Amino acid sequence: MNLKQMVGIEAAKHVTDGMIVGLGTGSTAYYMVEELGRRVKEEQLDIIGVTTSNATEQQARALNIPLKSVDEVSHVDLTIDGADEISSNFQGIKGGGAALLFEKIVASNSNKNIWIVDESKLVENLGAFPLPVEVIPYGSQQLLNLFEENELQPKLRLIDGESIKTDSGNYIIDLHLESIDDSALKPLSSWLNALPGVVEHGLFLDIVDTVIVGREKGPETIGAIRRG
Amino acid sequence: MNLKQMVGIEAAKHVTDGMIVGLGTGSTAYYMVEELGRRVKEEQLDIIGVTTSNATEQQARALNIPLKSVDEVSHVDLTIDGADEISSNFQGIKGGGAALLFEKIVASNSNKNIWIVDESKLVENLGAFPLPVEVIPYGSQQLLNLFEENELQPKLRLIDGESIKTDSGNYIIDLHLESIDDSALKPLSSWLNALPGVVEHGLFLDIVDTVIVGREKGPETIGAIRRG
Repeated sequence: MNLKQMVGIEAAKHVTDGMIVGLGTGSTAYYMVEELGRRVKEEQLDIIGVTTSNATEQQARALNIPLKSVDEVSHVDLTIDGADEISSNFQGIKGGGAALLFEKIVASNSNKNIWIVDESKLVENLGAFPLPVEVIPYGSQQLLNLFEENELQPKLRLIDGESIKTDSGNYIIDLHLESIDDSALKPLSSWLNALPGVVEHGLFLDIVDTVIVGREKGPETIGAIRRG
Repeated sequence: MNLKQMVGIEAAKHVTDGMIVGLGTGSTAYYMVEELGRRVKEEQLDIIGVTTSNATEQQARALNIPLKSVDEVSHVDLTIDGADEISSNFQGIKGGGAALLFEKIVASNSNKNIWIVDESKLVENLGAFPLPVEVIPYGSQQLLNLFEENELQPKLRLIDGESIKTDSGNYIIDLHLESIDDSALKPLSSWLNALPGVVEHGLFLDIVDTVIVGREKGPETIGAIRRG
């Protein structure tokens, strides 16, 4: 069993009968969804899943996990998702898989959020991982210019030479910050939020409650204490 | 000649040869675009138009106004657009026509912005006109609930009983603020910008340079002096 599978299964233990569960997207969340599917089938686990991407929706549907849209439930009890980087103050970057918008919508409507990662994702300061920004196609070149002027080293994310399209039909611009102190994250988040054409960005601040880390000796569960 | 037509023609006088001009959307901007089309045809006015909606693009194309996307120009010299309400400090609400997103993208990339309105749009405080918020469909019910909890009297904008879809495929939620002091506009704008699922909102703050008002005695041009 690989480390991603191990943390995926460990995280799924937090899911109990009757829960409405946000199902994350990505290679680690994949194993968590597989495990919930197994428990639904073999243990008659009674849950409703709320998906964060078209990809996860397909996976969950194939596993016969009952699904509802985030708009059909009163709340989400728990969301389990991956993360691309987690700082020492438990602030995160997500969106490597381009699903940040729906992930953030579901996370912000969840009573509790668990992130599942391998230990390489734990960093002192965020920024080595590119920060994805989801933008409206119209005006995206102007935003690239603006980010360039602000020395954020923007790069339009491409697939087969074309701009990738998110599940909402938008583009992704990856910013390269190198290293950014946690104290600078909220001003950066506010600045990005206020830019016309920016739909969402991959800074997930003050959102995670528990991190489960895949380590060689086994999964480690860390309660997030935010000092930021 | 009606008042809307009068201010439309008056505003078009600010457009001179060589300009890149943002072309607004709505019933007053319509006359400004018609007048520019006339001058392009009859006076060989040499401009490039940047449109703010699919509707305006169709109109300008039919008038043979040369067009470029906001991403194909280095800048926009001047944008002329309507507004739904303008406060005494020249802050505005736009988006009655559901084109607020592209309008704000073009306005924020313009060196100068002119708004053309009839005098009923000039108010002491904003809020009698509903404030449109463009939202991602996924999660829109959760946003309606949140706005309801915050006593913002939200209403999903419908057409023929269905949610209207913006040019970017999103929904519009209209907030009913009644009356909001100019000092409360920036906090409200920041709060809305930070909500996952909110793409853009109709508060246009510190954007307009000149307002042209249609009055019975003729159009009046007011330079915006922001005290806010």
